[in-house]
Amino acid sequence: MAIGGAEDKLRERAILRRVVDLSGNGHSRIAIIPTASGHQEAGQRYIRIFEEFGADHAEVIDIRDHSDANDPANVRLIEECTGIFLTGGNQIRMSSILGGTRVAAAIREANRSGVTVAGTSAGASAMTAVMVAGGKRGRTPRANMVQMAPGLGLIDTLIIDQHFRERDRVARLLTMVSYNPGLIGIGIDEDTAALIGPDDRMEVLGNGSVMIVDGSQLTSDIFAKRGASPLTITNALVHFVASGGIFDLDQRRPVAVRW
Amino acid sequence: MAIGGAEDKLRERAILRRVVDLSGNGHSRIAIIPTASGHQEAGQRYIRIFEEFGADHAEVIDIRDHSDANDPANVRLIEECTGIFLTGGNQIRMSSILGGTRVAAAIREANRSGVTVAGTSAGASAMTAVMVAGGKRGRTPRANMVQMAPGLGLIDTLIIDQHFRERDRVARLLTMVSYNPGLIGIGIDEDTAALIGPDDRMEVLGNGSVMIVDGSQLTSDIFAKRGASPLTITNALVHFVASGGIFDLDQRRPVAVRW
Repeated sequence: MAIGGAEDKLRERAILRRVVDLSGNGHSRIAIIPTASGHQEAGQRYIRIFEEFGADHAEVIDIRDHSDANDPANVRLIEECTGIFLTGGNQIRMSSILGGTRVAAAIREANRSGVTVAGTSAGASAMTAVMVAGGKRGRTPRANMVQMAPGLGLIDTLIIDQHFRERDRVARLLTMVSYNPGLIGIGIDEDTAALIGPDDRMEVLGNGSVMIVDGSQLTSDIFAKRGASPLTITNALVHFVASGGIFDLDQRRPVAVRW
Repeated sequence: MAIGGAEDKLRERAILRRVVDLSGNGHSRIAIIPTASGHQEAGQRYIRIFEEFGADHAEVIDIRDHSDANDPANVRLIEECTGIFLTGGNQIRMSSILGGTRVAAAIREANRSGVTVAGTSAGASAMTAVMVAGGKRGRTPRANMVQMAPGLGLIDTLIIDQHFRERDRVARLLTMVSYNPGLIGIGIDEDTAALIGPDDRMEVLGNGSVMIVDGSQLTSDIFAKRGASPLTITNALVHFVASGGIFDLDQRRPVAVRW
């Protein structure tokens, strides 16, 4: 579950409630990883929320460096949990500290075996094999408006951006997909989540919407452009899916969109 | 086989000769893809060389846009070949034109089933899932000295740089690995090749050497740095392997290095 950041933590909290449900409500153990933030406290607030929604146990795994990320005790905590939550912060903290470690391998393995991994903001972007590392807001796609870097590799077919409408990131998502139209671009608004199932279907929940960029027909001149010159991009197929809608990422089409 | 660019085309031509051998000397059909260059002529010179070394047939597949890259006739040429050669040029041309197309899928499928894919310069870098897209030369690792982008995805454990010693790219390779130490960095000199087998062993051939960056112990402050400020990087494990040497990418150690 990729969350666009700033998820409701006070009222309905539909997204965080769903995290608990997906982790096996009643017998769930949720591991909270605050590495993106660098502050262990960034994880503490989620303990109360998850336990309030019925999680058996929620715990912050305090991973600040490579040594923590290779610590067998931390690996065991990942292996024993039924849900994993990655906080927001800076996704380069995640990739540079967790990349290549035993904890990162354990997270991928847990996810492959069916454990829900949820991440918000930087924690959402870090899930993909190629992740957005940084960039500029703005309406015009330009070659130099976005930087990418290798992420945690839970998903290799997508690239995920967040705080999407709020930080004006449409152009940078289109730019990323132009670099390689084989990737599907996913832009998630704040307080909105994209829940991707093992069947490659993506359900949207929350208050905003998710923009999907399908580049299978896309042509651009990104290979010929440098710096800030505006790109030409044609035939980008764009979808916006709001709460309750389902998009099939394999077939690249909506399957149950509420109008 | 990833070639560092500027491979000998006039004298011994050990690297290009090996491409033919690996493609099944005597009954080989080699498909040359000049998309990175944008000039079909960039492929023509290789036809003569490959045929001179005994290739049954060598042919340029002229893929200039998405439509060419989804053309069933071109897909069939890939399916029928015993070797694939990607010319140099600009790797963003490759990823942005081939990404998500039927030809790209056919290249990956051919490679998985044992067909040798060789690429030189941009054609070498484009092979990985996360590829180097551009950057600066220089001795000091800095956060903004390198840009990455999604590549063709034949290999997802490496990131490959080329023209390595000649264009002073050591610092940018270390910077890329610092972004995610889970990737192994490979820097290939000109007229030098890294031949990666299905057993994850990498043999070096040619006149220069290959630098390998193992980040499994690496710690950096890349998450805290912006722009051109120099990075702090500790415990990067670096190897240089010259012609004839073999490095085990799975075990991350040299297995047969000639001293």
